[in-house]
Amino acid sequence: MIKVSIITIGDELLIGQVIDTNSAWMAQELNKAGIKVNRRVAVGDDWNEIWKALDDESEKAEVILITGGLGPTADDITKPLLCEYFNGKMIVSQEALDNVIHIFENIHKRPVTERNRKQAEVPDTCKVILNKRGTAPCMWFEKDKKIFVSMPGVPHEMKGLMEESIIPELSKIFTLPFICHRTLVTYGIGESNLADKIQGFEAALPSNIKLAYLPNYGIVRLRLTSSGNDKVKTETEIENHFQQLQEEVKDFLVTNEDAPMELVVGRLLMETNKTISTAESCTGGYISHLLTAIPGSSAYFDGSMVTYSYQAKENLLGVRNETLINYGAVSEEVVREMINGLLIKMNTDYAIAVSGIMGPGGGTPEKPIGTVWVAVGSKEKIVTKLFHFRFDRQKNIQLTAINALNLMREFIIQNK
Amino acid sequence: MIKVSIITIGDELLIGQVIDTNSAWMAQELNKAGIKVNRRVAVGDDWNEIWKALDDESEKAEVILITGGLGPTADDITKPLLCEYFNGKMIVSQEALDNVIHIFENIHKRPVTERNRKQAEVPDTCKVILNKRGTAPCMWFEKDKKIFVSMPGVPHEMKGLMEESIIPELSKIFTLPFICHRTLVTYGIGESNLADKIQGFEAALPSNIKLAYLPNYGIVRLRLTSSGNDKVKTETEIENHFQQLQEEVKDFLVTNEDAPMELVVGRLLMETNKTISTAESCTGGYISHLLTAIPGSSAYFDGSMVTYSYQAKENLLGVRNETLINYGAVSEEVVREMINGLLIKMNTDYAIAVSGIMGPGGGTPEKPIGTVWVAVGSKEKIVTKLFHFRFDRQKNIQLTAINALNLMREFIIQNK
Repeated sequence: MIKVSIITIGDELLIGQVIDTNSAWMAQELNKAGIKVNRRVAVGDDWNEIWKALDDESEKAEVILITGGLGPTADDITKPLLCEYFNGKMIVSQEALDNVIHIFENIHKRPVTERNRKQAEVPDTCKVILNKRGTAPCMWFEKDKKIFVSMPGVPHEMKGLMEESIIPELSKIFTLPFICHRTLVTYGIGESNLADKIQGFEAALPSNIKLAYLPNYGIVRLRLTSSGNDKVKTETEIENHFQQLQEEVKDFLVTNEDAPMELVVGRLLMETNKTISTAESCTGGYISHLLTAIPGSSAYFDGSMVTYSYQAKENLLGVRNETLINYGAVSEEVVREMINGLLIKMNTDYAIAVSGIMGPGGGTPEKPIGTVWVAVGSKEKIVTKLFHFRFDRQKNIQLTAINALNLMREFIIQNK
Repeated sequence: MIKVSIITIGDELLIGQVIDTNSAWMAQELNKAGIKVNRRVAVGDDWNEIWKALDDESEKAEVILITGGLGPTADDITKPLLCEYFNGKMIVSQEALDNVIHIFENIHKRPVTERNRKQAEVPDTCKVILNKRGTAPCMWFEKDKKIFVSMPGVPHEMKGLMEESIIPELSKIFTLPFICHRTLVTYGIGESNLADKIQGFEAALPSNIKLAYLPNYGIVRLRLTSSGNDKVKTETEIENHFQQLQEEVKDFLVTNEDAPMELVVGRLLMETNKTISTAESCTGGYISHLLTAIPGSSAYFDGSMVTYSYQAKENLLGVRNETLINYGAVSEEVVREMINGLLIKMNTDYAIAVSGIMGPGGGTPEKPIGTVWVAVGSKEKIVTKLFHFRFDRQKNIQLTAINALNLMREFIIQNK
């Protein structure tokens, strides 16, 4: 199996100003093609560090994929460094220059400056791969039987290059094995208890199938991984064990694929031809955002009301002022009135209502930060639940959303 | 200046199943304390790879911070590996065991299993740092004058340990320089043009101040970085250059700090004591989510209506059916009626309305995917703008939100 290292370049990665999402996406796509990423390394815009990283990783891998540092500004040093590293001299790539001119004239509708033209310069020791989505060309080098590919760090440019050129090219050069992952999602059981529960299953796994636990606040994903040269055999083998695993955890199983809760709920709605709406206080539209992030969600999602203030709760959802005064906005009574008001206004089959205290302000001894009331239901029946989270604002919002969606999921299954 | 390497451990990082947000956060906090991260390396749950990474990074750095692989399940091999790497034997840490028992008895309210108890075992060659937020203890090793710290990968556990123990401890051991970053945000000018514009400024920067460009779809952030031993001198020097930089880019300046657009808008509202609401079709509540992700946003945010269907646009916002039929949901006429309806219903000072086609479905030759109409305004005045984005659903939603918020920002400034 070939080994791949990913090197990401940029000071912003080392001072924490940006989160590296590129590497995860690259690893995912490479994996699908049977290519295993062995190491990911991030270094700054520093000549010696980049040079050393190239040396190091080429000792450890056959393919070194590099992103970042190809911009037109002075802090971007990757291109001159690669030129020197591979003993080249800079020349203008006509193909890259045509692309730069095309992008400026037809897309940006701005004149091409000298700085833009310089983007088309490349070391003469590389093969240029056209980057249709941007002005920085992708460069493919080979040295001592190792392959080095330098791509821009702009995600959608890198993605286009990987999908259209680099992965197809690597698949031609190497004989790749078949890697197979199967993931399921559980809810309501901790990692340790789950491990105890499936101890026997895990011990009996053949050595070429690996089990991983991916816990994430109430949810634990279980992943089986196998690789082999025979696609059908690898798939059949993992499928058998995956079926068994589903049976083992059936009381906690949310879905038998690596899907987020909002997709699971969306599919349930799609299958049963039902619609949903949300009334959100503390989540401020986040549940609605999650539901509508799924392509095709307009088939089952009608709309939402984000009612942050007392006034909005009263005017938009018909929550009674006395209920707010007597019980407070974060109360079972209020989420009940919210969901009832919502079901009347939106006329959807199902609805979710949430109200809570996300922090950092707003907590009281009786209702500390993290206190959340959730209501889910239909015109026939409503279920409410009280949650206590104990994290920061961002995490509390996410947890409220995922737990509300899970409650909705359980409700739909039990009442369909 | 001491050098730090971060090693993150977990197969999920190398198959792209999770995005590594820990490293960015760690780098940010270390930087504030004057500690520079030199390299970040991710390796899988693989004995040899982890071992080699420890060897490699200890050659390159004085401090090696390790996260992940400390869970209670069989795929977590970091602890036994560290035990062998540092020639120790496993013992029970009484302090860690007390913590495990406390967490299970008082927080999870579940009995402590044998597997849970095993979490309290540590190599006798380490100093244990108590992890109050979880069951996996943090381990501090020293070898050949290098420091190795192993932490769990669960973000809020790692954060607690870094903030309360590791950074304070490193600050005691090392004499740390003062690192200073100043970042500003520009909108409406590309990276190349910006670089041309401030070429003179950049060339005249002293060698200890570094300028970086951080482009991100319409927005370019500019960051100045300086480090020195004298806090006041370092701050004064960077402040002078930062003032000059602000002046250079003043026509495109959004804010003189590293703040997201929703925070900039929120502050403007707070300063002027005004309120806002949103009517969202294609963004599905994402703008509302961004606005309410800011602590204290209840001071200026009242609520939102997410109107995905025709029916919701008509019933909640009073958009006329004939307008929808004649012009389509994605039209200037519809966003005008949406914002007018919203301003009446919500009675806020300002409002935002958006309607567009995010993809992957729904595009037509006249209105391709990425077509978005935005309206911002008040009861006195409304401004509309047509955008054409050309990305995937997720990116189109983000771009719509950021551009709508920027249009709102400009409107507030021009009309206050």
